[in-house]
Amino acid sequence: MTESVPDIIVSRLPVYLRALQRMSDNGITTTSSQELGEKVGISAAQIRKDLSQFGEFGKQGTGYYIPFLIDKLRAILKVDRIWDVVVIGMGDMGHAIVRYQGFSNRGFQVAMCFDSDPDKIGQQVGNFTIRDVKDLAKDVREAGVKVAMLCVPARFAQEVTDKLVESGVRGILNYAPVSLSVPESVKVQHIDPAIGLQRITYYI
Amino acid sequence: MTESVPDIIVSRLPVYLRALQRMSDNGITTTSSQELGEKVGISAAQIRKDLSQFGEFGKQGTGYYIPFLIDKLRAILKVDRIWDVVVIGMGDMGHAIVRYQGFSNRGFQVAMCFDSDPDKIGQQVGNFTIRDVKDLAKDVREAGVKVAMLCVPARFAQEVTDKLVESGVRGILNYAPVSLSVPESVKVQHIDPAIGLQRITYYI
Repeated sequence: MTESVPDIIVSRLPVYLRALQRMSDNGITTTSSQELGEKVGISAAQIRKDLSQFGEFGKQGTGYYIPFLIDKLRAILKVDRIWDVVVIGMGDMGHAIVRYQGFSNRGFQVAMCFDSDPDKIGQQVGNFTIRDVKDLAKDVREAGVKVAMLCVPARFAQEVTDKLVESGVRGILNYAPVSLSVPESVKVQHIDPAIGLQRITYYI
Repeated sequence: MTESVPDIIVSRLPVYLRALQRMSDNGITTTSSQELGEKVGISAAQIRKDLSQFGEFGKQGTGYYIPFLIDKLRAILKVDRIWDVVVIGMGDMGHAIVRYQGFSNRGFQVAMCFDSDPDKIGQQVGNFTIRDVKDLAKDVREAGVKVAMLCVPARFAQEVTDKLVESGVRGILNYAPVSLSVPESVKVQHIDPAIGLQRITYYI
């Protein structure tokens, strides 16, 4: 069922899920593609088309039952479980991520963090002790961690990525401002604020 | 020339620019759509098609002269200048952003930062003194700042957004995990690591 769904549709599902979880948090139990569309800035027709790729989730006239649609989307995105995440690079951004409270109810938890700086290794950040990046491959493989957040300087990003891939990591959220070479079986998403800002200034 | 270009094409231009700037930093002066495509994970045909929306930037057989293409892309994205940016919300993420060194050669610089917490107001972060969010509308309007990065908790995000829009801000990079309502003249981009991670786990 999932292989053939275009990436662009998959990329919108987490946005729908976030909006639905927020409505649910506010005690709302039903919605329409119209209302959801207004919240996320996507047309109702597009939402109906996107969701129809995965099944029949709403009823003509009554719309969507939010808890049901949340369950379905969480299962589709595989966040009906908690994924352990490894954070590499404990600068300001790595610190912010490790202390970030917003992951756990969305399918993720930080499991370990690494740096190469002798002054940082052994230091405590939140509940975690910063580990030596020399142990990265071993520790990640032993723990079976599949998801990584990469916060190292750009010049180290590819080298660390190669280690992660060797160790069985299947997905990387990359904060380094550089593209990464990975095998097809590994998925990379980028977080680059300058890219976000440049997508804004075009329109000003 | 710009009104009719699809958002999806505009969204790829900063990715091309980043890769080209990186090649340029490494002393490379020419490239092809093939080579650029391999670096960014987009097909050569797509790159040629995207760039052709804005003019003729390459030559059959010799490819692209990188400094020329960088200049053109910077002009198209309006980052051939430096934009002042206001940061609101000085938690871990706000701190990381204010101290981030990677903006200035990509068209942006932090100009001021705000928080509502009396314990934070007046504190120094890098070169900046944290200002009182009560002065946000006035300070932003007086300085003529057009771009904001929003790092406040989700429950405050819409309220602060409304203030920013009133004060003349035209673009918001939103780190709060919530959608924002803005007039059509204001552009919002989101940075939400959980969304990035959920776009990864679908494929694992």
